[in-house]
This record gives sequence, structure tokens and C-alpha cells, in this order.
Amino acid sequence: MSQKPSLPKGTRDFGPIQMYRREYLFSTIKSVFKKYGFMPLETPAMENLNVLTGKYGDEGDQLLFKVLNSGDFLNKTTSEDYEAGSKSITSKISEKGLKYDLTVPFARYVAMNRNDVAFPFKRYQIQPVWRADRPQKGRYREFYQCDADIVGTDSLICEAELLAIVEEVFEKLNFEDYQVSLSSRKILEGIAEACGASDEFSRFCTILDKLDKIGLDKVKEELSGIGVSDKGLTTLTTILAIAGNNDQVLKRLSDQLGNTQVGLEGIRETQETLDHLGRLGKTAKKIKVDLTLARGLSYYTGMIYEVKPTTISMGTITAGGRYDNLTGVFGLDGVSGVGISFGIDRIYDTLNELDLFPTDNTQATKILLTNFDDIAQAHALTILGKLREKDIPSEIYPESAKLKKQMTYADKKSIPYVLMIGSREMETGIYSLKNMTSGEQKEVSIDQLLNELS
Amino acid sequence: MSQKPSLPKGTRDFGPIQMYRREYLFSTIKSVFKKYGFMPLETPAMENLNVLTGKYGDEGDQLLFKVLNSGDFLNKTTSEDYEAGSKSITSKISEKGLKYDLTVPFARYVAMNRNDVAFPFKRYQIQPVWRADRPQKGRYREFYQCDADIVGTDSLICEAELLAIVEEVFEKLNFEDYQVSLSSRKILEGIAEACGASDEFSRFCTILDKLDKIGLDKVKEELSGIGVSDKGLTTLTTILAIAGNNDQVLKRLSDQLGNTQVGLEGIRETQETLDHLGRLGKTAKKIKVDLTLARGLSYYTGMIYEVKPTTISMGTITAGGRYDNLTGVFGLDGVSGVGISFGIDRIYDTLNELDLFPTDNTQATKILLTNFDDIAQAHALTILGKLREKDIPSEIYPESAKLKKQMTYADKKSIPYVLMIGSREMETGIYSLKNMTSGEQKEVSIDQLLNELS
Repeated sequence: MSQKPSLPKGTRDFGPIQMYRREYLFSTIKSVFKKYGFMPLETPAMENLNVLTGKYGDEGDQLLFKVLNSGDFLNKTTSEDYEAGSKSITSKISEKGLKYDLTVPFARYVAMNRNDVAFPFKRYQIQPVWRADRPQKGRYREFYQCDADIVGTDSLICEAELLAIVEEVFEKLNFEDYQVSLSSRKILEGIAEACGASDEFSRFCTILDKLDKIGLDKVKEELSGIGVSDKGLTTLTTILAIAGNNDQVLKRLSDQLGNTQVGLEGIRETQETLDHLGRLGKTAKKIKVDLTLARGLSYYTGMIYEVKPTTISMGTITAGGRYDNLTGVFGLDGVSGVGISFGIDRIYDTLNELDLFPTDNTQATKILLTNFDDIAQAHALTILGKLREKDIPSEIYPESAKLKKQMTYADKKSIPYVLMIGSREMETGIYSLKNMTSGEQKEVSIDQLLNELS
Repeated sequence: MSQKPSLPKGTRDFGPIQMYRREYLFSTIKSVFKKYGFMPLETPAMENLNVLTGKYGDEGDQLLFKVLNSGDFLNKTTSEDYEAGSKSITSKISEKGLKYDLTVPFARYVAMNRNDVAFPFKRYQIQPVWRADRPQKGRYREFYQCDADIVGTDSLICEAELLAIVEEVFEKLNFEDYQVSLSSRKILEGIAEACGASDEFSRFCTILDKLDKIGLDKVKEELSGIGVSDKGLTTLTTILAIAGNNDQVLKRLSDQLGNTQVGLEGIRETQETLDHLGRLGKTAKKIKVDLTLARGLSYYTGMIYEVKPTTISMGTITAGGRYDNLTGVFGLDGVSGVGISFGIDRIYDTLNELDLFPTDNTQATKILLTNFDDIAQAHALTILGKLREKDIPSEIYPESAKLKKQMTYADKKSIPYVLMIGSREMETGIYSLKNMTSGEQKEVSIDQLLNELS
């Protein structure tokens, strides 16, 4: 009996066209990572659950895909376990889960290989991760992450290099319409301190983060609700009104944060990052110091940055920051680092929407040789051998068939040239080469053909 | 509390050195696939269990990794289900599994996309698969498969192209010491018929497959046990004694199989495959027609082939064959095909053992700039910008540190050059370039440096 097959919710196949585009994206990003001295790493899809749980908060734990133990998985359970319900029986029937991000497996790798790794360790990792989230537009249960991190140094050169990587990657992708927001957690702490909200720092951040959505008045109202004084609110208003280029913004902010050591530290680090970037020959013209930048993740402790398209609504397409103590939970202290994550799916959608993918696919078949009968086929195979010897991606239609069928095949595969091989051609050694884009047809010898296509 | 992290049994991390080598392997194979007109495909790690189960036999079903439903997975179960045991409760708490191979997901993809796919469809797929097998040397629970298939045509050109791909891939990898065994299931059927064992074909194959291990006498004994007559055994002995080059073997076999239509068909197809290969400009000098080749998988119906190293003991490193009705189980009949699978892990081990991986890693950092203090660091960053503008993979040591520490870093990362940047160098614009392999040091200007390394 045949069955109608389907895909699990929130997962996708990537057919040839998507794959060509994804490979173009991945190889572009990889080439820049490598140029900056980052080394590749891959970790397994499955991790032991004790590596994964407790690292992403309660919500994250619930979104982990858990793998059922193989064999008689119930044999470590009792009917009491069953009666106690899903949550309590899980750990007895499942020991492994699918990885939720690339950061925790990376931390595990560093902790396990601490003696072999060359610190500071620069690694990149491009692999799928899995989250049992409710699928919706742009949110998948299986999706690729594309991360680069440098661990084992506090040098702000790292931040500058990651920002330089952003500039180079998007330049190579011919994508110009984006902005990089840059700040430091320490600036935010300084602002909180200047507003007298240090004790409520995390709620202060959460409220400030809503500025774009709810506006300044509402933000002030909520801040007042958590005990920020009128004087504090006035200071905040002044700070949020700061405008100018990056140097000016940082200068003006330091006038406001003069009394908060952490704030001044954040300003100095931001300035130093920008200075390093200039020395690296980067214009930093897409970078805007954004004093309200908070980034959701609470583990960031220093510089933070995020990239958004400016002409289309797509959300954050790339982001990252500095964090403390990556591997502490795995028994290796003192390893802090800084990272960046390229949001592959959103970058894909962005390039797609802006029509920025290359139209000529250098990876795909360049020419199809026709196949009308056994004699022409034998003849075509010898030509095919010569084309491939020149590394020209080429095919023969594998069966004798009507021209129309072979043309349809070339069309469907977007093959740009078709070489006609009939009895006249075999006799004269001169073949009709059809350009499938223009429809033009011209006569070529094999040598001319090889020259033209290689 | 910190925990000692570990990896799930049978899974591996791939650190930088392994990754460089794996990427070299994958990109070599991919480039040949593309040259032959194969297009990339990726399918999700998770498939619905109804897609996977029943496709790999009972043993395969047991080796599937099953993913626990998310949320309150017990809510579709009763305590009777629990009492009935693991096997019967599985389908109620798990709907998805990790893919077991690339063939079934490929079949599902073709069935689901039958209207968009250009038939004959040539696709390659390089992705991990998962099997809950007992881990042992060379056998992993998560491992990559690397497959190319052509579906939707019976043309033997496809077989010839896959064999040409084998020749090109191993040539590109500079690996010469291998042999390709080639035969057809139909030849085996012919032999069985000639021996009067057609009714017991599958047991006949199983026994014949043991020839290498148990020897001819034992094989004959076992065949006698399933009812093969003395006359049949004599015929078999004659057939197994056939020697010579491929043309001779096929000719001599056809004298023996003259009365079996299927056998003659197999001989004709084998000969035609070799003829096509010659037309494609391939020598086929590694190919040996092997009349006893059976290949374990019962779904092969036509040509079969496998590749083994000749100078080391590694087993089959690449194999494939023609099969019928790939997608029938998913409601799409008449799609047969032929494929090849490169065994990445074994090929990796083979190249490793024979020391065939390239020693100069063109993907990794080529030069490290030293960092002795803030002034030298600022100076170094401007040089770094110029190196990267020329696409030279390069790094600065991110912190001021003792020379020894920086040299150790370069050594550990196998960076071949180190540029010394001290006050004298900054003054004169002439820098010491140290070759880390030879230990030599020479004086270069920035222009000379850029020329030398690009």
C-alpha cells in the first residue's frame, strides 16, 4: 500500500535552487571567517541531555527535542513513574537531545579539549539546530546557525574583527542596505546607574528595550512604576535625546555618565572598538552607536551589536556580543569570549527579496548534449569526455528522445547551452550550439566549443 | 556546580584539522558530482516515522533513533499502553525519527515534488544519518553519507557516468591503489539459473557471497544442502574458474550462460557500461568484472559495483547499483534509478593511513602578526587590513604578550609565517618575516610581503 508522504512540521527540504543559493551564502561567509583566522568545528546533532538542560532557561528546556533511548526504554521505569507524568518520566526514557544552539556544544568542546585547543581559540561552526517551537513564518524547528567566536581573550580587537567580518560578508554579498547597532552592556549599566535604577537593572533593560514599540512616555511611566525617580527620568530623557555621529554621541554620553565608572568603561570600549576597526581599514560607515541597544540575551556582559536591513522589514539578521565564563558550567573557568551569529534564513530571505542572488549559476550544468539515437549517443559521449576534461559541467540526455523533451529538460534545469548532434554534425565535425537564453544558434567545432565554455 | 561533559556513545566532534580534511574530501567529491550535472539536495534530519519505518527491515526499524513528542507526550497513552511495553507505546509517544539513510528521504522528496523535478533527476546529497547500532571501530551512530543518484531512466550511460565519477574522484584525491568490482544482478541470476538454483536465488547469493571467507568446497557443500545438483555444482566450478581481462571474462561467461536469457542480458549490460565508459575517455583500468559480486542489499536489480583499497585492509569504501521502483511505496510508480555512495569515514581513514591528505592547508591562516604593545598593535592592525584586502588569511595575536607565547600559538595552529613588529620595524618599514617551517628569517617591506603571500 502506498502512503502519502509528508514532512515534519517546521522542517524543510532544500531543493537544488535553494541549495545553490545556500551554498553561495555559506561559502561566502566561510571564506571571510577563514580569512580572519577562524577554524571550522562540527559537533554531533545529539548531545547528552545533561549537557543541554539548564542552559537555556525553563522555556529552552521545554523546547529541546529529546531522543528516546533505544531498545526497551521502559525497563528503567516503574508504573509510578508513568503515573507521575511526562515531565518526571522523561529523564528515565531519554538520555540524549538534539542540540538547541551551537554555543553550548562549543563550550562543551572547549572544556573537553582544553589541552589541545590553541587559545585564544577562533572557531566558526555552521550546522543545523533544533527547537520544538511553534512553527510560523520564518521560524523553523530545524534551522542552520552560523557562528564565529573567539574565546580566551578580552582584547577588543576581537570585537573589531567581528564587525569587520560583517562589513566584508555583506560587501561580498552585494548587500548595502543595512545598519549595525553598536553598544555595550556597560553603557546600559551606566545609564541605569545614572538614572538610579541599578538595583532594577534587568527590569530597566526590559522596559527600555520596548522604546521602539511603546514610545518614550510609556517607557517613563513603566520605569516610574519600578521606582525610578523624576530626576532619573529627566536624566534618561536627556540621554535618549543625544544625537550626532558616533564620536559625538560617545562624547556627549560621557558628559552625562561622568559619575558612573562602568558607563565610562563602556564608552571607552566602544570607542576603542571603533578605533581598531578604522586601523583595519574599515569605514564603519554602517555602524551606529545605539545607546538603547539591549539584546535579549542576559549572558552578554560587554560589547553588543546587531544588524538590520534598512529598506525592508526583516528584523535582526546578524548579532552577537561579549560574554563571560563560557565554559564554567563544564568545569573550565576563566574562558570568556565574543561571538557573532549570522541568521542564515533571514539573510537568505533578504537577498531573495532584494534580488541579490547571482543569476548565473556557476555551479550548475553549462551544456546539454542531445541524444537522438545510438550512433549519435556514442559520438556525444566522446565529446562529453572532452568537455569534462576541461572541467566544464556538462551532461548528455541519457536516452534517445524527441528534441522537445530534451529541450524541456534543459529548460527545467536552467542549462544555458544545448549542443545538437545529428548525422550532418557528425559528418562535418561542425555542431549547432543553441544559447537557451537568447535562442540564438551558431555553428562550432569541438575546439571552438571547448574554448567558448571553459 | 560544574559537570564533566561527555559525548553520546558513537558520536564525534570534528575539530579543525579533521574539518579541513573532511572539507577537502567533500569539496573534491562535490566538484566532480557537479561537473557531471548532479544537483544538490538536503532533507531534514527528522522525518515522520511513517516515512522511515518498514523501509529497512525489522532490524533497521529497531536501529531508528526516535524523537519524543514535545509537550505532554504521555497524554495520548493509557496505563494499559504502559503495561504493554516499550514496543507498543513507542508509536503513541514518538512520531518522528532521525533519518537512517539518504535514499528513503530522497524517494520521499521525489514523490512529493514529482511535478517540479526535471526527470531524469540527478541529485547528490551529503548529510549525516543516524543508526542506533552498537558503536565499534569505524562504526558510528552519527555519520555522513555521500550519495549521488540518477532516477527516471534505464540508460546505462548513468552507470558509466557513476564509474567515471569514481575514477575522477580518486584521481583528484591522488589515491591509486584501489579496485572496482563490477557485475550485474542479472549475471548472478543467470549463474543461478545455469546451476539450477533459480528457485533458491536469494539463498544462492548469500552462500556465494561467502566464497572469499569459506572457500569453494564449503560453498559447494552448502549449495548442495539447498538442493543444487552435482551437475549444477560442476557448472558453477567452471564459471568460477573463468579468468582473463574483462572482455574475455564476459565472452567466456556468455559461453556458459548461453541458455539463460537473463544472464546474457546481464553480460550485454556489463559490456555496454564498459563501452560507454571508454567513449567517455576513461581507461576503466581499475575495473574488474567480478562474477561473484552480490552486494548485500536485495533491492539492487541491475548493475552493481563496489570499490576496495588494494594495499590496505579497509573493506568497501564506495559502492552502488541499479534498483527498481524507488518511490513506489510513496505512491509514485515507475521511478527506477542507479546510485553510488562514497563511504566518507573509510575514505578519510584510507587517505590518512596512506598519508594522502595535502600537507599545505590552503584554507588556514597563513601569517600571524605579533603584538608587543599598544603602539605596535595599532601599527599591526593597519598591516592586517592590507593582507586581508589581498585575501590572505591572516591574524594578529589579540593581546600584547611575550614572543614565546605568540610563537606557541602560531605553532599550535600550524601558521607557516610570523611577522615581527617592533619599534625598529615600525621606524624603517622593513619587517622580519619568520618562516615557521624552516626557521629562516628575512627582511621584507609590506609590498614584498603582500607579493610573497598572495
